[in-house]
Amino acid sequence: MVTKEEIAEWFKELQDNICAALENLDSGSKFREDIWNREGGGGGRTRIIEGNVIEKGGVNFSAVHGQTPQNILSALKLDEADFFATGVSIVLHPSNPNVPIIHMNVRYFEMSNGTWWFGGGIDLTPHVIEEDEARYFHKTLKSACDNHHPDYYHRFKEWADDYFYNKHRKETRGIGGIFFDRLSINEPLDKNQLFEFVKKVGNTFAPLYCTLAEKKKDLHYTEDDKQWQNLRRGRYVEFNLVYDKGTKFGLDTDGRVESILMSLPKTAGWEYNYVPKAGSREENTLKQLKKGINWI
Amino acid sequence: MVTKEEIAEWFKELQDNICAALENLDSGSKFREDIWNREGGGGGRTRIIEGNVIEKGGVNFSAVHGQTPQNILSALKLDEADFFATGVSIVLHPSNPNVPIIHMNVRYFEMSNGTWWFGGGIDLTPHVIEEDEARYFHKTLKSACDNHHPDYYHRFKEWADDYFYNKHRKETRGIGGIFFDRLSINEPLDKNQLFEFVKKVGNTFAPLYCTLAEKKKDLHYTEDDKQWQNLRRGRYVEFNLVYDKGTKFGLDTDGRVESILMSLPKTAGWEYNYVPKAGSREENTLKQLKKGINWI
Repeated sequence: MVTKEEIAEWFKELQDNICAALENLDSGSKFREDIWNREGGGGGRTRIIEGNVIEKGGVNFSAVHGQTPQNILSALKLDEADFFATGVSIVLHPSNPNVPIIHMNVRYFEMSNGTWWFGGGIDLTPHVIEEDEARYFHKTLKSACDNHHPDYYHRFKEWADDYFYNKHRKETRGIGGIFFDRLSINEPLDKNQLFEFVKKVGNTFAPLYCTLAEKKKDLHYTEDDKQWQNLRRGRYVEFNLVYDKGTKFGLDTDGRVESILMSLPKTAGWEYNYVPKAGSREENTLKQLKKGINWI
Repeated sequence: MVTKEEIAEWFKELQDNICAALENLDSGSKFREDIWNREGGGGGRTRIIEGNVIEKGGVNFSAVHGQTPQNILSALKLDEADFFATGVSIVLHPSNPNVPIIHMNVRYFEMSNGTWWFGGGIDLTPHVIEEDEARYFHKTLKSACDNHHPDYYHRFKEWADDYFYNKHRKETRGIGGIFFDRLSINEPLDKNQLFEFVKKVGNTFAPLYCTLAEKKKDLHYTEDDKQWQNLRRGRYVEFNLVYDKGTKFGLDTDGRVESILMSLPKTAGWEYNYVPKAGSREENTLKQLKKGINWI
């Protein structure tokens, strides 16, 4: 069976590969790297890009270990155990409002008592929803999932709809994607097969986003489009600060704030009771921020 | 003893008076009003200004009643009770980065079992801290408090330091002010006296903010100052979405989202690991975002 060291090593390479692909997309903009150590054990490599195509983006790797946080111990009814957690976490906020925001995460967690699980997902937040793009995005995820288990796309697509949801707005964050957590011994796949699935998700990210961004990165946009982008980014901020479990966990456990909050955009905005023009693509976007849409 | 109707009526007048003073400060900009009803009982008047001095601000009145929310019942170990809650809530985000952000709230809550309490406060978030301004602000609050009880300023100033705190940043939101909650039968003041104190806090707001804003609303500022303002507003958003109890309670109980989130600025921003220049007034500001400073 695959070991935690092998998983962490593969995640590190994934970070390298994705950064290389994104630097290529952004015609030579470079990531800057901060290496950090965690007091309780382990550390990470935070990489930030501020380019032309990507206004602000982070591609973070971490592998941390130590005493398991109390809330996880309580949830699992354990008194004490050490943990190991590794993952790659990405959020990209593009400059051009025609290009969607994307988020990807793959992660692995294990404890000294033998418990282990994988989690992860990819989801897309277009500032303006276009059905062709949404279909292509979901088709790509479906085919990545279908190689591993016939139920996975359907199951993890629903999970993403439920997870990436601004409850107070009754609005999904974007067009969803796939989300999964705590995949472990109950799964139809064994540990090695789950790792292969997680690798597939990780490897799907860069070519998928580069394809989407290439297509639209040079499209014309107006000041109004930028303002709308700011409002959509405001909703992204609301989700990440109010609901996102990774963010909450990080802030609660005194994680590295700048690495956790790299997910927040360079600018965002809020207008009181903003209602887009009837028949506009902005209004059409709001109508489609719903759970349960079959994008394929 | 003062009744809930009298309190709500006074809060309504306070809203009117404050709106008039702010329209005067903003040389003729006008609030727009949305009247809303709550499904379970009661409603409110949300008033929003988008002026020249105040880029985005809200002055909200509400008086709602109905079945007490479950989390309050549980906290008080009650099975069932009706509640009545009324208050005025204000957040003002000025255009000019030299003018501070301000927040004020006064509120009254009672239940059919006889429980009642007052809460409220005023706190200031300068984008750039200036000691003269901070001293004047705190002196004004102290003298408002001193008229009612010699311990109140000290006690409620500490409470504000603890409450308006971005724990994950180890940073206060601004220079604090006063904050108090659940003032009730245990207080040295009786109910009528507490109401007089709350009225004093409410009446202190408009002249205090108008004085601060008048002084600086026409000061010159640069693009860099605006960018710094955006970063400070980002921290304001973090506090309101991650910690603020009123916001959390409103979102959890399906409150009117646009009224609750009027507190968020028209624009905000985040930079990865931003460090202001050594010796700058921005660096000096960060150094003073600490609990326990005696501003007087």
